[in-house]
Amino acid sequence: MRITLGELAVQFGLDLHGDPDTLVAHAATLAGAGDGAITFLANPQYRKQLRVTKAAAVVLDAGDVDECPTACLVSTNPYASYARIAQILHPPAPPTVGIHPTAVIGESAAIDASSEVGAQCVVGNNVKIGPGVILGPGCIIGEDVRIGGYTRLAAQVTLQSGVVIGERSILHPGVVVGADGFGFAADEGVWLKVPQLGSVVIGDDVEIGAHTTIDRGAIDDTIIENGVKLDNHIMIGHNVRIGEHTIMAAKVGVSGSTRIGKRCMVAAEAAFVGHIDVADDCVITARAVLNHSVTEPGVFAGLLVADEVGKWRKNAARFRNLDGFVRRLKALEKKIAALVREKDK
Amino acid sequence: MRITLGELAVQFGLDLHGDPDTLVAHAATLAGAGDGAITFLANPQYRKQLRVTKAAAVVLDAGDVDECPTACLVSTNPYASYARIAQILHPPAPPTVGIHPTAVIGESAAIDASSEVGAQCVVGNNVKIGPGVILGPGCIIGEDVRIGGYTRLAAQVTLQSGVVIGERSILHPGVVVGADGFGFAADEGVWLKVPQLGSVVIGDDVEIGAHTTIDRGAIDDTIIENGVKLDNHIMIGHNVRIGEHTIMAAKVGVSGSTRIGKRCMVAAEAAFVGHIDVADDCVITARAVLNHSVTEPGVFAGLLVADEVGKWRKNAARFRNLDGFVRRLKALEKKIAALVREKDK
Amino acid sequence: MRITLGELAVQFGLDLHGDPDTLVAHAATLAGAGDGAITFLANPQYRKQLRVTKAAAVVLDAGDVDECPTACLVSTNPYASYARIAQILHPPAPPTVGIHPTAVIGESAAIDASSEVGAQCVVGNNVKIGPGVILGPGCIIGEDVRIGGYTRLAAQVTLQSGVVIGERSILHPGVVVGADGFGFAADEGVWLKVPQLGSVVIGDDVEIGAHTTIDRGAIDDTIIENGVKLDNHIMIGHNVRIGEHTIMAAKVGVSGSTRIGKRCMVAAEAAFVGHIDVADDCVITARAVLNHSVTEPGVFAGLLVADEVGKWRKNAARFRNLDGFVRRLKALEKKIAALVREKDK
Repeated sequence: MRITLGELAVQFGLDLHGDPDTLVAHAATLAGAGDGAITFLANPQYRKQLRVTKAAAVVLDAGDVDECPTACLVSTNPYASYARIAQILHPPAPPTVGIHPTAVIGESAAIDASSEVGAQCVVGNNVKIGPGVILGPGCIIGEDVRIGGYTRLAAQVTLQSGVVIGERSILHPGVVVGADGFGFAADEGVWLKVPQLGSVVIGDDVEIGAHTTIDRGAIDDTIIENGVKLDNHIMIGHNVRIGEHTIMAAKVGVSGSTRIGKRCMVAAEAAFVGHIDVADDCVITARAVLNHSVTEPGVFAGLLVADEVGKWRKNAARFRNLDGFVRRLKALEKKIAALVREKDK
Repeated sequence: MRITLGELAVQFGLDLHGDPDTLVAHAATLAGAGDGAITFLANPQYRKQLRVTKAAAVVLDAGDVDECPTACLVSTNPYASYARIAQILHPPAPPTVGIHPTAVIGESAAIDASSEVGAQCVVGNNVKIGPGVILGPGCIIGEDVRIGGYTRLAAQVTLQSGVVIGERSILHPGVVVGADGFGFAADEGVWLKVPQLGSVVIGDDVEIGAHTTIDRGAIDDTIIENGVKLDNHIMIGHNVRIGEHTIMAAKVGVSGSTRIGKRCMVAAEAAFVGHIDVADDCVITARAVLNHSVTEPGVFAGLLVADEVGKWRKNAARFRNLDGFVRRLKALEKKIAALVREKDK
Repeated sequence: MRITLGELAVQFGLDLHGDPDTLVAHAATLAGAGDGAITFLANPQYRKQLRVTKAAAVVLDAGDVDECPTACLVSTNPYASYARIAQILHPPAPPTVGIHPTAVIGESAAIDASSEVGAQCVVGNNVKIGPGVILGPGCIIGEDVRIGGYTRLAAQVTLQSGVVIGERSILHPGVVVGADGFGFAADEGVWLKVPQLGSVVIGDDVEIGAHTTIDRGAIDDTIIENGVKLDNHIMIGHNVRIGEHTIMAAKVGVSGSTRIGKRCMVAAEAAFVGHIDVADDCVITARAVLNHSVTEPGVFAGLLVADEVGKWRKNAARFRNLDGFVRRLKALEKKIAALVREKDK
């Protein structure tokens, strides 16, 4: 794929400084770019690299045009414009249409003729797969699953029975959707399994990272709305609902029955206790554990960062007696108040 | 499956209020239930929904009978009674008896004729599989593994060589049992692999969640006793032993050679350092890290919950100098003691 | 495999106390060892077991020779010497040479004739596999992957397109290398996918634990240098670089573009924020989160260990107002200074 800067400027509404006939063929970093490469500047800490880049063109903000030694495409959101251009230059591979001879297909499965079922896949009875779908090698699709058009499962993805996925979603290797939620009733020292009868419904344009698991609901469904982006090793418990365009970095955990609003941003290793409701547009920073419902947009933090070990240990040891110190502080306040009163007599 | 309330009352020793001939066919939520549905009330926060439920019957505590607008089954443990009823109404699918033609079976493997080996499975040499077992699609069973009767592996489960699993256990997709423990000896700046020669022994009625890993022992075995329930993404290190009926929520980590007692309850993301012994009946709350042995039942906590970011940051910054504040507190105490002494002269 | 103590002494430069013709056939624990077993003492807390061991021989430090009731091999690093001896007595199984008939091999894949491709594997186009390699059952190898000689993939390992792995490396079940990094550009309330165009390059003698994921770079590659050892459930983000012989315990997380030096030791559940550089020879203790670059070797901690729940809750409640307490401390200091000044007038 090669495209001229002029075409890119028109297609994405960007202001071009340079020769519109210059061809670009691939994306690169500022530092690594050479002939035919387009790159971008979005993070100011890379501005030094801009001055010496050998790229054919750079996508950047208007404020950086003067520093750019080569052609540039000016955007109010250079990173988003770069993403769109890189998608054109490096499109995902299209389906290798058809069902691989080693795949096992259940009775009455309806797989669109434009889709790909890879080697060693297993597709259960009554599965429905839309157009342009790719099931990479080794995927296991349970009975009654539905997969919308143009969705891609990279490899070794497991969808248990009844799971529904929308269109244009991407599931990376090792994703497990629809395993039983963790439901047990205590009964005289033994745990009784509570059957997990719901399923999982995933919307359109969702991306799910490697080894993330989304459990099926206990009775109702677990729901992931349109446009949600989940990184690797995330755990979504049963009956959770995640609102549109919410994004979660690696290793986030969401306990059962919690509902998270739209457009929330959740940093790595943050977690949510169960049975809480979190408003739209909330931000949870790295490793924070939210344990209460939130009704208005807000930013929540909960991380004590690492410190040099000697210093950390002294502070951590003091923490173990923090309540005692506060009591001593209160006692001192009283004593001083008494001294001051006496003096003022 | 349909069953009358009268039969349920007799079978589970419940007190019935309503027509014993009423048939129920499936479980539902209080809010979602309709004709033929049985539901339950265990959590008081759903009591409002009880008053308007359209369920055919509700399993509940004696104290809630008067508020129930429909038939009810009274239990001293409504959630457990519901679990038993839901198990009857929604039994797991029985094995599709036989070995799928795409499965690969090793020499001298002994697979009971009443069991199922799913598509794309690989079963190693000398494996022994009891009656009524289900190996879902894509499972990999190493040499010399033994699986007890009625145990179910959902899909894509990997059991490495020599692993032993008891009866009626359930392993969800992506579970890995018997991978090498993490054993390395430091030797002049390089890490030498210490061969991991033990195996993993898992008891009866154990349930293991998606993507949980249980490593094989270094020399002796890693042991999971009967009735243990493990959620998703748990990591059990080599030579760990987990006592009967202990339950662990998602993402718990147990470092090597730690022994955990019977009937412990471990909340999500809690962890145990290595080489400690934890008594029976301990409770570890969410994200706590236990770093010492415990000889008596107890409850241990270790989480600082998230706070509004501005407030959190101020407190976290103070924490980094907590030792200094305590020293200042001590200095003040001395000064005040001196002032008081002087005044009393 | 049986070998005499004399041969072991010569081969590994150890001082032998006992009969050089004694044969040992397998490794065992001090407590479990019997005839033909060799064991070791490295951790002083097991010294009691030394006195009563029934092992044929013990590898130990010179200081423990007098307490040893049987033959011994004296080493300045008993654990490393034990590791080498155990490797000889318990070598990994050699490849079952050849391509299993159920494996699917892409066009122009070049697989050395001395290697094994297990059942149900899928090997993509243009893959190159060196001598003595083992691909265990169910591995998925994407296009253009290269695997160096004697590397072993245990089972169900997924390598996405273009990944490069060196020689003698070991990847445990469920490892995913080369899934897309987590790159999205915010654009008017929607997240645009940023194509992940780099790959992953892994060196020689690397070991990677079950379910660990290593994401492909956004443009440049993610790099794991020679001799790195990674435990289970680790998440390595895109464009990370991990230096030679660095070791990481379970569940460590490394966010994108962070570079970690050589010979670092990272304990379980520690994490690194993105875009930082960590010097060689750093130690990060359990669950610490490093959020800044480090230019010199150092030890960093960040864990508040669990406490009895009542005590923990009091301290945690105080923490939520720590800033307020420090302000009160400062106010007291001022008041006392005023009282002292007045008294001294």
